[in-house]
Amino acid sequence: MFDLLAKTRVFNGLAAREVEKAMEGIHFQLRSYHNDDIIAYAGEAYDHLLLLIEGSVRGEISKFDGQQVVVSEIHAPGSFAEAFLYASKNKLKINVKATSEVRLLSIGKEYLNRLMHKDIRILENYLNIISNRFVIVTEKLNFMMIKTVKGRLAYYMLNRQEVLNGAEQFPLGRTHQELAVFLGITRPALTRNLLEMKEEGIIDIDRKRVTIRNRDMLNRLVQ
Amino acid sequence: MFDLLAKTRVFNGLAAREVEKAMEGIHFQLRSYHNDDIIAYAGEAYDHLLLLIEGSVRGEISKFDGQQVVVSEIHAPGSFAEAFLYASKNKLKINVKATSEVRLLSIGKEYLNRLMHKDIRILENYLNIISNRFVIVTEKLNFMMIKTVKGRLAYYMLNRQEVLNGAEQFPLGRTHQELAVFLGITRPALTRNLLEMKEEGIIDIDRKRVTIRNRDMLNRLVQ
Repeated sequence: MFDLLAKTRVFNGLAAREVEKAMEGIHFQLRSYHNDDIIAYAGEAYDHLLLLIEGSVRGEISKFDGQQVVVSEIHAPGSFAEAFLYASKNKLKINVKATSEVRLLSIGKEYLNRLMHKDIRILENYLNIISNRFVIVTEKLNFMMIKTVKGRLAYYMLNRQEVLNGAEQFPLGRTHQELAVFLGITRPALTRNLLEMKEEGIIDIDRKRVTIRNRDMLNRLVQ
Repeated sequence: MFDLLAKTRVFNGLAAREVEKAMEGIHFQLRSYHNDDIIAYAGEAYDHLLLLIEGSVRGEISKFDGQQVVVSEIHAPGSFAEAFLYASKNKLKINVKATSEVRLLSIGKEYLNRLMHKDIRILENYLNIISNRFVIVTEKLNFMMIKTVKGRLAYYMLNRQEVLNGAEQFPLGRTHQELAVFLGITRPALTRNLLEMKEEGIIDIDRKRVTIRNRDMLNRLVQ
């Protein structure tokens, strides 16, 4: 079991032996579920960290009309809802459902605190996990604040260029499929918009390499 | 100084004396800035936590066209960019600028780790701060995914009702001004939409009390 735990991000950098040592004196529960069992309900306060050591689970939102929307899938070894555990509003927004035979380990918040206290690497890992979640959601929000698809594409490219230290030519960084999902549009819509931006002389795009032709126009698209 | 630090959320629950004790052996730097000085630049890696003990600072985004947009204002005693410190992508997105005479305390990440290790309350506070940031941004993102103003209002009301355990009548929970800012619309637009929803028989609104008249129509607005 400790070798599986060692593969979760919470225990990143620790050998199985070190995880075992850190877990000494820590209260935890092992739980098993069958396919389709509900593991945690939306609306429940989330006060135990769940570490998935076998199987896979799915996060589903019940929309107000009763429809179920899948928002995430997690496969062992992994953990989830790490930020909700420490948030003041700690009620889950999603139902967590087993999608196979599942084994997981549940640690109460108080014992997780002790665990982080015992090994500073676990503390840093945990802070890193929730901080990264925050950064991802913030980036997504920044995109959503831009109303047009071309604006989002322009924002994406200007950011890529910034990350790559201002190079005039740079790789797109994602496949068209990945980029479409990231921007919340279909793949044909992405291709159409890229082609239009090319025809308008704003960018050049050759396979996955982008060249910025008209920075001013790109800037204006973002506004 | 420790009495001021004790008032920041990082040290929530600790007396000045306890903060002083926790800070023993922790390396930190005191820094002073004048009005208009830049304290941290967008694009810089953020690897020290800045705790504001005197004055106020402003976070500004430089848009691609050079325009400055104020995104946050923080007054002492406070801290900022807590999540960026532990994120893998830890480059600041904003310039941090002094808007008065400023004194702040800077603690490197390694020493902040030690501080959290020394006092588990500081650890819990820090986890709570970044988790709350995550929850706030996630809620904002959920709103932004809804395209119409009425949809956002409907989502807000259904959520309010859920939090208040399904009461048919409940207080709006924010002033019109606050709600308009929260939804990213103007106050007259908010009032107009609320009136329309009333005329359409979806809700009743009397001062700040909301009654849900037609739940199905409310649900349909969110889709």
